[in-house]
Amino acid sequence: MDQPIIAILTDFGDQDFFTASMKGVIAGINPHARPIDITNKVPPFDIAAASFILKASYKYFPSGTIFLVVVDPGVGTSRRIIIAQSQGYTFIAPDNGVLSWVMEEDEEIVVREAASEHYFLQEISRTFEGRDKMAPVAAWLSKGIQVENFGPVIDDYHTMEAARPEREGNKIWGRIIYQDGFGNLITNISEKEYLELTREVGEGSFAISLQEKEIPVRESYESVEKGQLLSLVNGQGYIEIAKRQGSAADDTKSKPGDPVLLTVKRE
Amino acid sequence: MDQPIIAILTDFGDQDFFTASMKGVIAGINPHARPIDITNKVPPFDIAAASFILKASYKYFPSGTIFLVVVDPGVGTSRRIIIAQSQGYTFIAPDNGVLSWVMEEDEEIVVREAASEHYFLQEISRTFEGRDKMAPVAAWLSKGIQVENFGPVIDDYHTMEAARPEREGNKIWGRIIYQDGFGNLITNISEKEYLELTREVGEGSFAISLQEKEIPVRESYESVEKGQLLSLVNGQGYIEIAKRQGSAADDTKSKPGDPVLLTVKRE
Amino acid sequence: MDQPIIAILTDFGDQDFFTASMKGVIAGINPHARPIDITNKVPPFDIAAASFILKASYKYFPSGTIFLVVVDPGVGTSRRIIIAQSQGYTFIAPDNGVLSWVMEEDEEIVVREAASEHYFLQEISRTFEGRDKMAPVAAWLSKGIQVENFGPVIDDYHTMEAARPEREGNKIWGRIIYQDGFGNLITNISEKEYLELTREVGEGSFAISLQEKEIPVRESYESVEKGQLLSLVNGQGYIEIAKRQGSAADDTKSKPGDPVLLTVKRE
Repeated sequence: MDQPIIAILTDFGDQDFFTASMKGVIAGINPHARPIDITNKVPPFDIAAASFILKASYKYFPSGTIFLVVVDPGVGTSRRIIIAQSQGYTFIAPDNGVLSWVMEEDEEIVVREAASEHYFLQEISRTFEGRDKMAPVAAWLSKGIQVENFGPVIDDYHTMEAARPEREGNKIWGRIIYQDGFGNLITNISEKEYLELTREVGEGSFAISLQEKEIPVRESYESVEKGQLLSLVNGQGYIEIAKRQGSAADDTKSKPGDPVLLTVKRE
Repeated sequence: MDQPIIAILTDFGDQDFFTASMKGVIAGINPHARPIDITNKVPPFDIAAASFILKASYKYFPSGTIFLVVVDPGVGTSRRIIIAQSQGYTFIAPDNGVLSWVMEEDEEIVVREAASEHYFLQEISRTFEGRDKMAPVAAWLSKGIQVENFGPVIDDYHTMEAARPEREGNKIWGRIIYQDGFGNLITNISEKEYLELTREVGEGSFAISLQEKEIPVRESYESVEKGQLLSLVNGQGYIEIAKRQGSAADDTKSKPGDPVLLTVKRE
Repeated sequence: MDQPIIAILTDFGDQDFFTASMKGVIAGINPHARPIDITNKVPPFDIAAASFILKASYKYFPSGTIFLVVVDPGVGTSRRIIIAQSQGYTFIAPDNGVLSWVMEEDEEIVVREAASEHYFLQEISRTFEGRDKMAPVAAWLSKGIQVENFGPVIDDYHTMEAARPEREGNKIWGRIIYQDGFGNLITNISEKEYLELTREVGEGSFAISLQEKEIPVRESYESVEKGQLLSLVNGQGYIEIAKRQGSAADDTKSKPGDPVLLTVKRE
């Protein structure tokens, strides 16, 4: 790519100068790199949310995109910085499990430690390694420096255990894993798991139980009235609980972590 | 344009990955397109606010700019996606009236349905047509694909009725149509209507009545002290109620929809 | 630079179209200019915060970067617009002291009034000079128009007095000058002043007193447990009070302006 994309995901918020400092560093090393913010509003230190956001968005970026993921509660400690490469993408992140969802999808991924100080800024602070180490690594990679130069392959990197739904006869027990800005509640039950269940059960319509409410699974928002709850397969391939033109989170008083149960609908 | 601009206006907020996914899709189709966010903080589903924001900003973009407007309460329903072209600009939006303010200003505009699936992503979700349909259409248009290829001209697209102020002798009845982030209250009374009134009345100074307060119309912020209310012609060509270095919305406890009355000032 | 950077710092917030209008104007004048937002979330009219943010970030941008700083409580009044040039950087701002921190660091800076209407938009509003005057000046400068053309050198521009810490024997009295989005509290005591003190005192460890709490000065976050307060030299070269993986501002109920005292730690 003549204008390589560096996609940025952080918990820096947007009131300060942190992401901008990283973009400045990148522009100084590779003026042709094009930073695109995924979001800077990951809840502070929330590695699980960041991991989901990355997984939900990365495949929509073109091959060759470099992802700079700075959700880094361990900044200034001895935790490593890693570079993970898949067939099409490169990810730079602290070694804290934030790449787990991506790694799970792509078993061919190769992980290195970004160890070579040669590619860091000359002055390194103890509080902002996103700017002083990770952003320059991203910029040098975008310039075409071969990944071998940054450090050795490692296999003892950290991963988070994914919260998997559990099948139990005609039921699937799951959890809410993400709440988006509209108040939609995304569960960990994938389209694939849902379709398997419907195929095996064969007939009947389905519903999600959440906080003692039973919410029907539908094809699209259109099938319910404005203000009603429904669940449906969302744009990321997961069962999502939504309120048509409203906030399902506010309506159900639910949040990430809460259990859900997918079952055949009661008549 | 060798780097065509795609200006993005949504109600996606900035905590998720939605706008970034659209930018990823655009970059995959046309790496030279340059996305610029107008804002992603339109109040959720607020078509009227989005329509005003677009009208207030689009003319400051260079000719050739493509606007991607995704405020889409009807996502996943049978509502159409439209492409509207004026002399200088192209607008892609759901067919829900969000382009009304722009269309009113420019009667030469030609509207098509974006019907050809050829220019959508291959997998279409029911919840995110901004990413799966509208962003790719914008990207292909930015690459120079002729608009005729996307679908037929239509004339039964939706429009919102604009809230027009009413002249009544020496008075103009209007409404607040937008509250900006500083708490300034923008009315639907245009500079043109205000100047006509002043010309006809011939003498006397003017004031806006809002919530039983009478607020003088002035030339600039400078004419009142810090903390005082005034009204003036704003940067978008409308009468705006402002508080010098403060929030008029907080001060007057007013909001979009509230009525205002422009009259000759009482002595 | 073939794609000159225009770094934008404002108090416009992100719910409206104000920053986007400036980017549109810039793109119309110089399509190759690359706008990068530092932040648009300076607290409204807070010149001191903007000045600190600029100082904390500008050196990370490459030489040649143009900074467009629109925190402008005096918009529409007779306050001037200035262009300040240092060896590597150009700053455009209202003449209200917002460049003070930068000017203090760089005594070679040359300041001009941006007076020539030739480089403004043709229609000038009374409420949005960022769009109508400052953005076009930035864009023309980025196109290579020589700075002499914009207006005369001036030396009576405004500056804010910097809040300097005071040394008193083995103590330094300072203040909190900035609170970041994580709730970290940045003081005006620089690394240099801290190191001088430690060198002269020779032994003993140090602590910051804030709201009757004594907070130890440490090397890095790692030296305290999660949830504990510490102070350390931060990524901008100042003593900062932080809570490991939490908000020091919430914990100590402190805010910018509050006094701090750096002393030898009590045993």
